Amino acid sequence: MSDSSKDPLRALLNPRSIAIVGASENSNKIGGRPLLYLRKHGYRGKVYPINPNRKDVQKYKCFPTLGALPEIPEVAIIAVPGEAAVEAVQTCAQAGVKAGVIFSSGFGETSDPKAIAQQQQMVRIARETGMRLIGPNSQGLANFGNGAVLNFSTMFIETPAKDGPIGIISQSGAMSVVPYALLRARGLGIRHCHATGNDADANVAELAAVVAEDPDLKLLLLYLENIRDAGALADAAAVARERNLPVIALKSGRTQAGQDAARSHTGALANEDRVVDAFLEQHGIARARDVNEWVNSAELYLKGWKPKGRNLVVISNSGAICVMAADVASEQGMPLATLAQSTREDLNKILPSFATTTNPIDLTAALLTNSALFSQILPVIAKDPAADAFHIGIPVAGEGYDVAAFAADSAVFAKRTGKPVVVSAPQALVADRFKAQGMTVFTTESEAVTALNQYLTHLELIQRVRDRNPHMPMAPLQQSGELRMLDEVESLRKVAQHNLSVVEFRHSEDSDAAVAAFREFNEPVVLKGCSPTIAHKSEWGLVKVGVDNEDDVRRHVDNFFRTLRMGGAVSNGSVVARQVKGQRELMLGGRIDPIFGPVVLVGDGGKYVEAMPDLALLVWPFDESDVRAALKRLRIAPLLGGIRGDPAMDVWALTQACVGVGRMLADPDSKVASFDLNPLILGAEGEGYHIVDAVVYVSA
Amino acid sequence: MSDSSKDPLRALLNPRSIAIVGASENSNKIGGRPLLYLRKHGYRGKVYPINPNRKDVQKYKCFPTLGALPEIPEVAIIAVPGEAAVEAVQTCAQAGVKAGVIFSSGFGETSDPKAIAQQQQMVRIARETGMRLIGPNSQGLANFGNGAVLNFSTMFIETPAKDGPIGIISQSGAMSVVPYALLRARGLGIRHCHATGNDADANVAELAAVVAEDPDLKLLLLYLENIRDAGALADAAAVARERNLPVIALKSGRTQAGQDAARSHTGALANEDRVVDAFLEQHGIARARDVNEWVNSAELYLKGWKPKGRNLVVISNSGAICVMAADVASEQGMPLATLAQSTREDLNKILPSFATTTNPIDLTAALLTNSALFSQILPVIAKDPAADAFHIGIPVAGEGYDVAAFAADSAVFAKRTGKPVVVSAPQALVADRFKAQGMTVFTTESEAVTALNQYLTHLELIQRVRDRNPHMPMAPLQQSGELRMLDEVESLRKVAQHNLSVVEFRHSEDSDAAVAAFREFNEPVVLKGCSPTIAHKSEWGLVKVGVDNEDDVRRHVDNFFRTLRMGGAVSNGSVVARQVKGQRELMLGGRIDPIFGPVVLVGDGGKYVEAMPDLALLVWPFDESDVRAALKRLRIAPLLGGIRGDPAMDVWALTQACVGVGRMLADPDSKVASFDLNPLILGAEGEGYHIVDAVVYVSA
Repeated sequence: MSDSSKDPLRALLNPRSIAIVGASENSNKIGGRPLLYLRKHGYRGKVYPINPNRKDVQKYKCFPTLGALPEIPEVAIIAVPGEAAVEAVQTCAQAGVKAGVIFSSGFGETSDPKAIAQQQQMVRIARETGMRLIGPNSQGLANFGNGAVLNFSTMFIETPAKDGPIGIISQSGAMSVVPYALLRARGLGIRHCHATGNDADANVAELAAVVAEDPDLKLLLLYLENIRDAGALADAAAVARERNLPVIALKSGRTQAGQDAARSHTGALANEDRVVDAFLEQHGIARARDVNEWVNSAELYLKGWKPKGRNLVVISNSGAICVMAADVASEQGMPLATLAQSTREDLNKILPSFATTTNPIDLTAALLTNSALFSQILPVIAKDPAADAFHIGIPVAGEGYDVAAFAADSAVFAKRTGKPVVVSAPQALVADRFKAQGMTVFTTESEAVTALNQYLTHLELIQRVRDRNPHMPMAPLQQSGELRMLDEVESLRKVAQHNLSVVEFRHSEDSDAAVAAFREFNEPVVLKGCSPTIAHKSEWGLVKVGVDNEDDVRRHVDNFFRTLRMGGAVSNGSVVARQVKGQRELMLGGRIDPIFGPVVLVGDGGKYVEAMPDLALLVWPFDESDVRAALKRLRIAPLLGGIRGDPAMDVWALTQACVGVGRMLADPDSKVASFDLNPLILGAEGEGYHIVDAVVYVSA
Repeated sequence: MSDSSKDPLRALLNPRSIAIVGASENSNKIGGRPLLYLRKHGYRGKVYPINPNRKDVQKYKCFPTLGALPEIPEVAIIAVPGEAAVEAVQTCAQAGVKAGVIFSSGFGETSDPKAIAQQQQMVRIARETGMRLIGPNSQGLANFGNGAVLNFSTMFIETPAKDGPIGIISQSGAMSVVPYALLRARGLGIRHCHATGNDADANVAELAAVVAEDPDLKLLLLYLENIRDAGALADAAAVARERNLPVIALKSGRTQAGQDAARSHTGALANEDRVVDAFLEQHGIARARDVNEWVNSAELYLKGWKPKGRNLVVISNSGAICVMAADVASEQGMPLATLAQSTREDLNKILPSFATTTNPIDLTAALLTNSALFSQILPVIAKDPAADAFHIGIPVAGEGYDVAAFAADSAVFAKRTGKPVVVSAPQALVADRFKAQGMTVFTTESEAVTALNQYLTHLELIQRVRDRNPHMPMAPLQQSGELRMLDEVESLRKVAQHNLSVVEFRHSEDSDAAVAAFREFNEPVVLKGCSPTIAHKSEWGLVKVGVDNEDDVRRHVDNFFRTLRMGGAVSNGSVVARQVKGQRELMLGGRIDPIFGPVVLVGDGGKYVEAMPDLALLVWPFDESDVRAALKRLRIAPLLGGIRGDPAMDVWALTQACVGVGRMLADPDSKVASFDLNPLILGAEGEGYHIVDAVVYVSA
């Protein structure tokens, strides 16, 4: 998206003037609610209701047509149905309105061909003049920073708005206001709350790229039901990263059942979920699996912490909370910090003998008899250099406890350390006291530690993405169209051309040539029958290994030709290949995803790849370090390093192979659309790898 | 536990009279709070404060000593510290008090040898007269059904009690009242809330077996930091099962970090976590990983539903909720029910054209304009036979919606179907309306569906446990003491004695005998050097496979003897074995867990068992159907069934082998303490298996 094409979207977020086509006196109607909201939220620009039947609407002066307005409105809300909406887009576009939000539904989200055509027409009309559209079927945009609430959601009546450093952008209306409600219930303020609807023209990602420019934002939440424009999302992620704005995406349709439901909801094609995972990770976007994961850690992002690591200290007045917090921290990869000897000695001077001075620190019920314990131990712990983050768990307090002091002491402690602190307190009374002191409070230790881990993991991800080569461009999306399978020889040559290490082989037209090739190798060989129409050679009996004499070579090759002839398959001769040994058979596959571009799969090879998959997925562009990180996630990762007397394998060569095939897919001149290299035989360190079998498809 | 030994614990739950040793006027002290609570909760038995310094305590008549009481109290609370507590136990036991609750702390939970000895002394004294003890370091018991609140927790002041069908029993004080508070916040009533403390005499499980007798209970929650008496827990589970009372256990110390924290908390030995998993499952106890999992599904157990299956129907006014609910249901193994054609046709007549009449049912924003939609579609869906359970998701409502009608309609629907219905509504206003109609409401669809799945999965588990052979007794726990390793020949013979299928082999004292054995087999053989001190033969070069001539047999066997001699190892001759082939090398291992008894591990074998484990664990007693269920969880499960042209493997024989080794471990006469059979070579269906390598340890 060019920068100037973003201008109309910027105008939608901060319009000088707004026309409402189909304005209504009834603020429960979609054409009436924005007027209520614009006034209520103090919007200072011009508001122009358009309705031929009224003189005024909700005390705003009303105009019969767009042409009757005293000026060209910068943006328009279109709240009229069907053909009238198409006409409104036409009128706005011709008049020079920069952007419109179409509230009206019953277009692309239906299965009615006429309605779908109307949507396409609106987009066509808008694109002729450069007008941008949000919707149709949009619940609207809401900027609570300037009162530009072009939105009809009921939620802002039920849960009053408060401006704050969070932005929410969602395809779904519900999923724009559900996180809004949950975050508001935690007392957090939200600046942006936008629901884009059918994304016929501008989509969530394009809007996100503009919202991300808001310098006050500290967290951006996206709800995506399908990703149709990966480039726009990558662009938005880049803008956000530049501005230090973390992005958390809830991408639904993770399962087949969810994708089926999404298809009947929006009609869009499903994204392959593991590609979505890899893509979001590559761009530093954290992925939430559900609404709770999406919002639970939000408050932590607003604190301005600069965490240095993930070593946790747990403090509680209950041993059980200590145990459970240790469980969840440890499961999520947050080690408990080992406290310095001096810290433990200082704690020993303060705590009773039965309390625990190792981490987790169990204050025991002694806190009941001595509320000052808290204020005494916190400064001691704050000094400890091993602690990166803290969890304070107060499962029970009340009568007999000085909860107000605990909360105040904790706040002083949090300020002093400057490090992340999360609190758990299931009692509302206790939680409220800590919240009043500005602490981040969860109901249970599990929620607190999980949110902390999510936050730390996301910051680490963003750092990793920053550290990557910033100049790796996305690959151009190739329209694959018709595909053609290459035979074994062509396939091996194609990958060899891209600097991949292919087993040494000879292509032989007949059995004489095959015997000659065998003589040349002078050692047992592998024989394969070659056909551009047969991908699964071994199932046809077209692969023979360990062939060690001329008679067998001749016999097998003749058999291949007979098999192909009888099967009606094209015969392209045979392959005589050196038989290579290595440490493990891996597989390397790839294809061009229609949305995300080149995708590479690497993992354990052999016969059971489908039944017991152990694969890592990489989305182009990626580099060697990305491959190394992906390989670490494989089940066979320990084997790559060498165990039980086996030598370490040549991981360096493997990463080169992965990057090589990625580059091949990304190169339009290669015409490669997909490939399956299985097995790739990986040798010990320094021995490299050999691709011994290849099936490549190219665009015809 | 004999039934009569349960009587004192029954008395604690419903005492005729209670003495409080160390009664205090101050209701914030542990000796004062029970008096406050007994009066507040309407306890109708006799209350006898004991305090030599007062005439009355909190308006109860006070007595100087136990001997001064007008009767022998049935139970006593002991709230005096240190040696005074020991003396109080002594006095109570001698007087014939049935049971005592020791609030005082500073005993077994400390590292002070004197305090630990005092705790042991209290137990000894009590056991002499048959008096039972709860504690020390117990927060006390609370029965809100009869007001017998022998408890000092602050929580019952902060969150007033309400009697109800839930019982909570916890080692930890905090973890008795945290679920209490969370469930009370959901409006649920709790009958029992007990915290047992150090479990020096009676433990959580023993108390649970008695609490489970309460006919009004519908759910029992246990918090366990360590399981020390598996038999008592099995007994409690059996009582609960007989009475149709589901049990959910939160067993902490799941990780090494958690276990370390627990050790410093209670000093008890850690349980191996995967054994805990298998044990709880075997006894029909659901295991919660954290507090949320523990309490989130509680309300569902109270409804009296009799679910027939797990096919879910999702209804929402938001397509996004439909997609996300489908995602979470599908991930958790709840298929979306396929609605009958007639249901869809009936829905089509009611819903607007852009709504979805397949499941999930997306009512769209049409619900805003027509609140009656809800009341129209629910009866149609209620009739559909494919639906086992329902989720209604209302992410947004309010101004313009008739939420009261939705809630009332849903309640009628729920009553009519009698099937499980869960609701999600993030807005408190909406949630409260549904709750007021008796519906079970969660904030998000993910929480609702997850809780539903937990509940259904637990009922299925209980049914499976009921369907098992009810007469399988637990194995007696064997004190293993010193262990002795058997050599290969002894090991193979030991397992063969227990009807396990061992490879055919000959034991040869010298190389002449080995050659004779080879001649007898008349085919390539496997040779092994045999020593009772070497478990890892291959690492010593003591295994040779495919030996096919006499010279090699002689040479290898002589080499074995030389190797053993030079290594200073005892030589017990050599093994000449038939070389068997099969479909896959598996492993079968076992040991006697000091708490849980015989434990068997079965899974993929070979060299990388440690690096890439794929093992299922079984706790004795188990039968063939348990083994089959365990095998299904293996990664290699698809291979057992036969794929990619491989034949199916002999799973029947494998289950026999697993049960056989379980029986061997459980048989005290076998003296087997642990074993490692790797590989066990499994053949195709009908071919059986062969154990080709065995290391067995027996108690010396």
